[in-house]
Amino acid sequence: MRIARVIGETIATIKSDRVHGTKLLILRQTTHTGEVIGKPYVAVDLVDAGVGDLVLTGHGSAARQTHLTKECPVDAVIAAVVDHLEVDGEVVFRTQ
Amino acid sequence: MRIARVIGETIATIKSDRVHGTKLLILRQTTHTGEVIGKPYVAVDLVDAGVGDLVLTGHGSAARQTHLTKECPVDAVIAAVVDHLEVDGEVVFRTQ
Amino acid sequence: MRIARVIGETIATIKSDRVHGTKLLILRQTTHTGEVIGKPYVAVDLVDAGVGDLVLTGHGSAARQTHLTKECPVDAVIAAVVDHLEVDGEVVFRTQ
Amino acid sequence: MRIARVIGETIATIKSDRVHGTKLLILRQTTHTGEVIGKPYVAVDLVDAGVGDLVLTGHGSAARQTHLTKECPVDAVIAAVVDHLEVDGEVVFRTQ
Amino acid sequence: MRIARVIGETIATIKSDRVHGTKLLILRQTTHTGEVIGKPYVAVDLVDAGVGDLVLTGHGSAARQTHLTKECPVDAVIAAVVDHLEVDGEVVFRTQ
Repeated sequence: MRIARVIGETIATIKSDRVHGTKLLILRQTTHTGEVIGKPYVAVDLVDAGVGDLVLTGHGSAARQTHLTKECPVDAVIAAVVDHLEVDGEVVFRTQ
Repeated sequence: MRIARVIGETIATIKSDRVHGTKLLILRQTTHTGEVIGKPYVAVDLVDAGVGDLVLTGHGSAARQTHLTKECPVDAVIAAVVDHLEVDGEVVFRTQ
Repeated sequence: MRIARVIGETIATIKSDRVHGTKLLILRQTTHTGEVIGKPYVAVDLVDAGVGDLVLTGHGSAARQTHLTKECPVDAVIAAVVDHLEVDGEVVFRTQ
Repeated sequence: MRIARVIGETIATIKSDRVHGTKLLILRQTTHTGEVIGKPYVAVDLVDAGVGDLVLTGHGSAARQTHLTKECPVDAVIAAVVDHLEVDGEVVFRTQ
Repeated sequence: MRIARVIGETIATIKSDRVHGTKLLILRQTTHTGEVIGKPYVAVDLVDAGVGDLVLTGHGSAARQTHLTKECPVDAVIAAVVDHLEVDGEVVFRTQ
């Protein structure tokens, strides 16, 4: 799973049937210290995340393991909001 | 899911049986401001998208979650047409 | 799906049971104008493609959606031979 | 599967239902000599690995082949702890 | 599928239940002439390959299409040993 920061939201008026009713957030992958790296991507929000949150995203068929996303043509979900990250026993990131 | 722009169409006279009857569009991934990045790829259109549209594409087995593409050897679909994108509360892209 | 050019063939005398009887072609991804980019890879041919053809390849579980490849340990198939590609209403590639 | 080193742990207070109760470790891919390369990622621990261990991680649907992770929105698991690695008949890495 | 060379073996004393009894080889992707490129990765051997062999590896769910690997948390298998590779009608690689 990727560590990522929620940076925004996607508003789409035309959607495939099964994507209706999902909240589609824009994210960018981060390092374990919360530094943004990589390209923006879009994931379905499962945990009521907000802009600025550091989260974990599951990709591929992982994205369709929930009632909300089962049989949807989506390939990424936000599965958890990060509280803090520890590396070598030290806290390297903490939600403020 | 990727944010992408539809740039063209693929015309293929010889296709595997189950790919017949699908519209195969050419896309390039974009940033959240609609700037094109990355290599061109091809996806099945589920939402009647047109050249120039900013869309969301689902990849991998996500592409086979619809009646049109079930059991097809395809790995990407256009699942939504983007109306606008918001980053940090500001609209950074809007369809014209 | 990737746009790719068939560049050669793989001859393997020792194969996993379920890979026997498949034609394994070597490909390289191309741009929408047919320019070769990226590393070579191998895909099962579903459409009787030949060396030099521009084709579309499906990846991941997409590769096992056919009778020929069902339950095979393969992850890429050639699903279509490209006739021509249009970008912004202009033909940018045409098979000769 | 990737060769990777466990570098830390993720503490997440808000999780999708099915991710509760899993240990989510932070990893970085390594070479066959244990040199760290690539971006950090997060995987569910199946083998009671600890920080500093060299491990093998399975990705994609591989991550949901166990009772712990079945139908979870996760896409990576730690499937083994490496004891040693041999290249060309020589031990190039050994756990201390 | 990737063209790859077997460079070594992984010895892991602690493994997830379903990975026990599999031979886990270390590989590096190659070009069609056998030149090594890319990062090392690990795959389950289905065809009794040895160090030095040029092989084809299947990735993702392709890796679990065999009795040996069904329901294992593995994401790569060696599906064939390459005898020779032809590009544009010429043999560009042959096993010695």
